[in-house]
Amino acid sequence: MISNKMKTLLVGSSAIRAMFEEGKRLAAIYGEENVCDFSLGNPNLPPPESVKKAIIDVLDEDEPTLVHGYMNNSGYEDVRAKVAESINKRFGTSFAEKNIVMSVGAAGGLNVILKTLINPGDEIITFAPFFGEYRNYASNFDAQLIVVPASIPDFQLNLEEFEARITPKTKAVIINNPNNPTGVVYPVETIIGLAEILRKKQKELGNDIYIISDEPYRELVYGDVEVPYITKYYDNTIVGYSFSKSLSLPGERIGYLVIPDEAADSEDLIGAANVATRILGYVSAPSLIQRAVAKCLDEKADINFYDKNRQMLYNGLTEAGLECIYPDGAFYLWVKSPLESEFEFVNMAKEHQLLIVPGTSFGCPGYVRLVYCVSPKTIETALPKFKALMEELKKH
Amino acid sequence: MISNKMKTLLVGSSAIRAMFEEGKRLAAIYGEENVCDFSLGNPNLPPPESVKKAIIDVLDEDEPTLVHGYMNNSGYEDVRAKVAESINKRFGTSFAEKNIVMSVGAAGGLNVILKTLINPGDEIITFAPFFGEYRNYASNFDAQLIVVPASIPDFQLNLEEFEARITPKTKAVIINNPNNPTGVVYPVETIIGLAEILRKKQKELGNDIYIISDEPYRELVYGDVEVPYITKYYDNTIVGYSFSKSLSLPGERIGYLVIPDEAADSEDLIGAANVATRILGYVSAPSLIQRAVAKCLDEKADINFYDKNRQMLYNGLTEAGLECIYPDGAFYLWVKSPLESEFEFVNMAKEHQLLIVPGTSFGCPGYVRLVYCVSPKTIETALPKFKALMEELKKH
Repeated sequence: MISNKMKTLLVGSSAIRAMFEEGKRLAAIYGEENVCDFSLGNPNLPPPESVKKAIIDVLDEDEPTLVHGYMNNSGYEDVRAKVAESINKRFGTSFAEKNIVMSVGAAGGLNVILKTLINPGDEIITFAPFFGEYRNYASNFDAQLIVVPASIPDFQLNLEEFEARITPKTKAVIINNPNNPTGVVYPVETIIGLAEILRKKQKELGNDIYIISDEPYRELVYGDVEVPYITKYYDNTIVGYSFSKSLSLPGERIGYLVIPDEAADSEDLIGAANVATRILGYVSAPSLIQRAVAKCLDEKADINFYDKNRQMLYNGLTEAGLECIYPDGAFYLWVKSPLESEFEFVNMAKEHQLLIVPGTSFGCPGYVRLVYCVSPKTIETALPKFKALMEELKKH
Repeated sequence: MISNKMKTLLVGSSAIRAMFEEGKRLAAIYGEENVCDFSLGNPNLPPPESVKKAIIDVLDEDEPTLVHGYMNNSGYEDVRAKVAESINKRFGTSFAEKNIVMSVGAAGGLNVILKTLINPGDEIITFAPFFGEYRNYASNFDAQLIVVPASIPDFQLNLEEFEARITPKTKAVIINNPNNPTGVVYPVETIIGLAEILRKKQKELGNDIYIISDEPYRELVYGDVEVPYITKYYDNTIVGYSFSKSLSLPGERIGYLVIPDEAADSEDLIGAANVATRILGYVSAPSLIQRAVAKCLDEKADINFYDKNRQMLYNGLTEAGLECIYPDGAFYLWVKSPLESEFEFVNMAKEHQLLIVPGTSFGCPGYVRLVYCVSPKTIETALPKFKALMEELKKH
């Protein structure tokens, strides 16, 4: 009696659950400390100390009816003003309070902006490999997700193939920068190229096409890598942001959308995003944590922790003979499957108590994804297992 | 360029905003203290002191990566077990952890269960007057909302008219007990009557029809009034609950669904609600507040505050000559418009700096709704204004 859409989704979800159960089964046999789970992007890192202090300060300083009460569906005005100011300071933009819509994480924000924009049958383009939930979010609004094939081996944006897929039905393009699952960052030249194609196509088709830039990993970049702020290069850009990774708060469901004045019909977009936040049942982003993150806009989780993991995992797997994409951002390592079928490789890895995710989940077969937001101990334990796995493969 | 659905919704939202702006305009002319806003259900009451203590205890006692991290999409297992235990203790039910799905408020819960159940074109029945958002929630999933006309003057459920509206397309019935906007509570006999009709019709049609019981006001009842726990009377019942009013936490977006084992296909429902929570972009209910409310399940906001307001407003308006439904629950007063068009009455009230909501917003013209979760001062200021308004009406 569940809906037809959910029937299909439940099958997919059973596969994930099966993997989870498999992990538990392996832990029971080999001991939990010997099972290396690289499948789930749950930061193994506490939030900065300032977050706890900020929460307590909000509770001590502000009126409880303000802290826990309804506010504008788009969020507290003072919080939104502070967020705008912080973005402006960092990226040289000029957003105001009204351009910010606080959201239930980046996932909530993406659903709000899709509800705002999409008519059934519209097309949304994204680039393989991509965060698998985009497919579900598109389906929530009966849009078709059009996937641009991966650009192998650099996993940058394949702009030629992209241009070929723009049609009169194209309403939006989702990009994820830094990218999950590859850890690749798209540099400013790539963004400029993307913007040029879109401006040309908009003119040709007489339509607006929006870039939706999904940026939960914006703060997680290593060395001197920069993540371009796309609103500066293309007017019809909506940014979706989350504090899940930057402040290690994935359970708190807190993020925001940026809707610039420069975007076509921006006033309607801003108004509709407000209404969509309400009617999708979010009503608003959670209140206490909204006020708390506004006090921590200059903070971020200890990126060195991830950086060390990144080096250790990348070096270890490369030494073991695996071909890995060097990640400039996020906390994912994207690895070429040494077997044609990455499912076979994933299953063999399981025999070595290594849990990794097949690339097909991200629209890109032949690869696997590992997360490195795990404890360093997990990586240390895993490296000899990967070596043994690669030895075994050589024998075949 | 916003979607067609949103275009329509934006018009409706502009009407609400217009009223809000009108309130600000009146405040500028007459002084804020002289404008009596009875339009918004934002509790003017702090949460119990124990909530603040619970939040700080969670921050002090639990690991930060647990408190702020991802958990099962349905919520923390220990929180769900405590919620189940608390319901069982109070209502003599026998739910387990797996029957509870933590949600982003009641609004989030309703959207999750509709995503779980509804195919496009399905019918959802509700009873006028009803919480206006039901229309939007149904539309989110392309269901048709079928409205049973109000039972005047008692505003109980019109079961005869209800039965006549059940068709092979009927998938669910939403009831709101205690009711927003009337404050009426449906007693056990009414629920038994409703259940009998549904069982008969299920058999006749060979379909399952689910009651979705929306219960954000469950704890807000006065005197010895009891709100029946519907799962005890009808197997295919899903309960949606919120801590927004019971603990005065509407901004925190925290509630839960109850999906009993006795419901048809309950295992699929539970699994699909978990997936729906994820793909609708909620991902989970917010984490810290989940853990905090689990420590406050026996607490509730000071109901005496609302009770005093209720008496004062009901007595005052009745004395002024208005016909009011005596509310047994929630914090709304439902008043018959003394003019045929309640819009005219609402506009006249505005001239007296009284902001009230037309019944048409709840599918029931000829009535108006007032909230009494306001400060007692607002009611004191308002009563002479209502008297003056009624005097003016007599002169016409």
